[in-house]
Amino acid sequence: MRQKRYFLPESEIPTQWYNIQADMPNKPQPMLNPATREPVTEDELSELFSRECSRQELNTTDRWIDIPQEVLEKYTYYRSTPLVRAYGLEEALGTPAHIFFKNESVSPVGSHKLNSALPQAYYCKMEGVTNVTTETGAGQWGAALSYASKLFGLECAVYQVKVSYNQKPYRRNIMQLFGAQVTASPSMSTRAGKNILTVDPNHQGSLGTAISEAVELARMTPGCKYALGSTMSHVSLHQTIIGLEAEKQMEMAGEYPDIVIACFGGGSNFSGISFPFMRHNMLEGRTTRFIAAEPAACPKMTKGTFEYDFGDEAGYTPLIPMFSLGHNFKPANIHAGGLRYHGAGAIVSQLMKDGLMEAADVLQLECFDAGILFAKSEGIIPAPESCHAIAAVVKEALKCKETGERKTILFNLSGHGLVDMAAYDQYLTGNLVNLNV
Amino acid sequence: MRQKRYFLPESEIPTQWYNIQADMPNKPQPMLNPATREPVTEDELSELFSRECSRQELNTTDRWIDIPQEVLEKYTYYRSTPLVRAYGLEEALGTPAHIFFKNESVSPVGSHKLNSALPQAYYCKMEGVTNVTTETGAGQWGAALSYASKLFGLECAVYQVKVSYNQKPYRRNIMQLFGAQVTASPSMSTRAGKNILTVDPNHQGSLGTAISEAVELARMTPGCKYALGSTMSHVSLHQTIIGLEAEKQMEMAGEYPDIVIACFGGGSNFSGISFPFMRHNMLEGRTTRFIAAEPAACPKMTKGTFEYDFGDEAGYTPLIPMFSLGHNFKPANIHAGGLRYHGAGAIVSQLMKDGLMEAADVLQLECFDAGILFAKSEGIIPAPESCHAIAAVVKEALKCKETGERKTILFNLSGHGLVDMAAYDQYLTGNLVNLNV
Repeated sequence: MRQKRYFLPESEIPTQWYNIQADMPNKPQPMLNPATREPVTEDELSELFSRECSRQELNTTDRWIDIPQEVLEKYTYYRSTPLVRAYGLEEALGTPAHIFFKNESVSPVGSHKLNSALPQAYYCKMEGVTNVTTETGAGQWGAALSYASKLFGLECAVYQVKVSYNQKPYRRNIMQLFGAQVTASPSMSTRAGKNILTVDPNHQGSLGTAISEAVELARMTPGCKYALGSTMSHVSLHQTIIGLEAEKQMEMAGEYPDIVIACFGGGSNFSGISFPFMRHNMLEGRTTRFIAAEPAACPKMTKGTFEYDFGDEAGYTPLIPMFSLGHNFKPANIHAGGLRYHGAGAIVSQLMKDGLMEAADVLQLECFDAGILFAKSEGIIPAPESCHAIAAVVKEALKCKETGERKTILFNLSGHGLVDMAAYDQYLTGNLVNLNV
Repeated sequence: MRQKRYFLPESEIPTQWYNIQADMPNKPQPMLNPATREPVTEDELSELFSRECSRQELNTTDRWIDIPQEVLEKYTYYRSTPLVRAYGLEEALGTPAHIFFKNESVSPVGSHKLNSALPQAYYCKMEGVTNVTTETGAGQWGAALSYASKLFGLECAVYQVKVSYNQKPYRRNIMQLFGAQVTASPSMSTRAGKNILTVDPNHQGSLGTAISEAVELARMTPGCKYALGSTMSHVSLHQTIIGLEAEKQMEMAGEYPDIVIACFGGGSNFSGISFPFMRHNMLEGRTTRFIAAEPAACPKMTKGTFEYDFGDEAGYTPLIPMFSLGHNFKPANIHAGGLRYHGAGAIVSQLMKDGLMEAADVLQLECFDAGILFAKSEGIIPAPESCHAIAAVVKEALKCKETGERKTILFNLSGHGLVDMAAYDQYLTGNLVNLNV
């Protein structure tokens, strides 16, 4: 019988993350202190983030970074995640392409986000931090950090984008179950939130507003650090566990990807699945294509500009060299809350600039079309975010059908959609529409 | 590093189910035709069920039944499920016991129910059936049959217990996403439903009412068969894949269970994890204990009587020899919808009568206490049904802590609770109460 899923034995789970900065032909430009316009230092970063994450953020030389033993042990709660051959989807499309996906939805909190939440919480704990705070969109990152904080004995406060807070009560419940304090953003609990609500009392929030509030809380609270779920280079680093596992698993399947696809918000799951394969493009002349699938309603990579911009609405963060739609960009209320972010991380922005990756934008209805086809053929209901990747996969697989090419496509299923059923219900009842910029 | 999870390679997934009827010291008493009081025949059963399931139902001689190749292939979409060592829970309890669980929540629909939905849908398809119908409580079984029907090209109609239909819209959405038609029971679409609503217009439904409606629809519709998610012997047969895998995986872990625990509605997940181990008690004198954990609000095993009773509210089914609270028993609206059933299957009832298994009943708050402890220590939010098993595990593990015994406890995590977050929200906000008979 043909093999459907590939697992690594626990002894084969990678023990180091891959730091792509060491291999990039052009290093990412430095983040700048907005006051001085000088590159931010490790000391400055560590006012906000843990010391170790600040160090990793600026590490452009070490190719491999050890995963702490305590984090590795927690990884075994759900890792290796399966690499799955999508026979069902291939048959539904009638494509000669071989489609594989890495199923990150099997993590305790239902998405890849835990891969970075665990080390971030661990480093905080080791450095004597007692409280962490963060922002969350759909709630995937918030749930991950809530759980990781619980495991390592930290208090956790989450600012959740208001539209998601109201649309997705179950995700809020999950965070609360893990002991986190959850506040809808913009809120009246911070100066940044108050300023936003003064201008627009009905502001539905964005990742930009929630980041401002979380950063402000971290700055004002002794013993409190901020943890970010995407965009930053250290987050991408932690996520490479996905691609490093996939590399070994693809080898078990006897294949190598011609195309790697992931959805794209700030870049963390895209980086995670792509970077380990991209190193073979950079170092050995492989020609794999890497496609970031982003929402047409928030198309920073296909329609944004490369510039220095803030990571948040209020301008509290360093200036980041990024493809951006502007830090005051208000994305439409699409259901993929995790992709409603105005900018891309420094590394992926540089890779995009250097032509080492591509981007494609996808409309909401096309995403759900693809997601439902996937659910019916593979049995897993994907997160609205992941539907973007699937839509891009379907497009490439149908091209193969036209040309008869037997390409190998690998994508990252970043999360499941079991807590996003209201979005599917809207789609099924004909109440979902396309939203553009 | 200590090993956390055990998987079987696909080549090691069992290719036969285990039929405990062949090994029982006393065979289950026959089901009776209520009109004639004669044992029901395969022909009579197959008016309602597929021919192959009817045959399996009455098979008391063949110890092993082949799993069809097409079903085995679909099993690989999620099987083997992991056997997990619950180090986190052990540490939280401070027990010397070794706790293992079989994680059936990783199936596409989030529970063990797919193990039987797949063969039932497959046999229907092979026999030329075009439509299937069923009942569902919390929606786990309905979701499983909806998905299996989609895979094998059948139309599917589900009667969902009204209280769950309203409490858990996401489960309904999942069934609808897989193309099923979902109706809240009792409904006006059947004679049985009309009769119930005439007596009590506010009847919130039970598995008993929903079964009556589904059975009536199957009887009135050409080309339509009925599929049941628990209670019947052929369902227990299909579920033995859980225990057969667990047997091999426990061997990989170098242990054998002293106690096996599962939650108990009609008996399907309990049978699945228990029967393969129970055969070693029956044939080789092993002394493993088997504990069925049922809700105090629906305690058929601990407080019911062994008698011939109907499987449904209206009296459409054969008379079944079962521990029962009476087929008109109205269980309180606990959140574990899948356990709100008045009777136990014929096999488990006989095993209970013969002292080959035990039962324990658990109050709702104790269940959620245990479930939240499990979520915080193992990272998986359990279904309210599965919380009953966990509560029983906690009790046994704490006994070990008192006595210092290092027992090996195995339980079945029948499903996850991500679609049951409203129940957790009630608990967390102090609005959940104990409900008794």
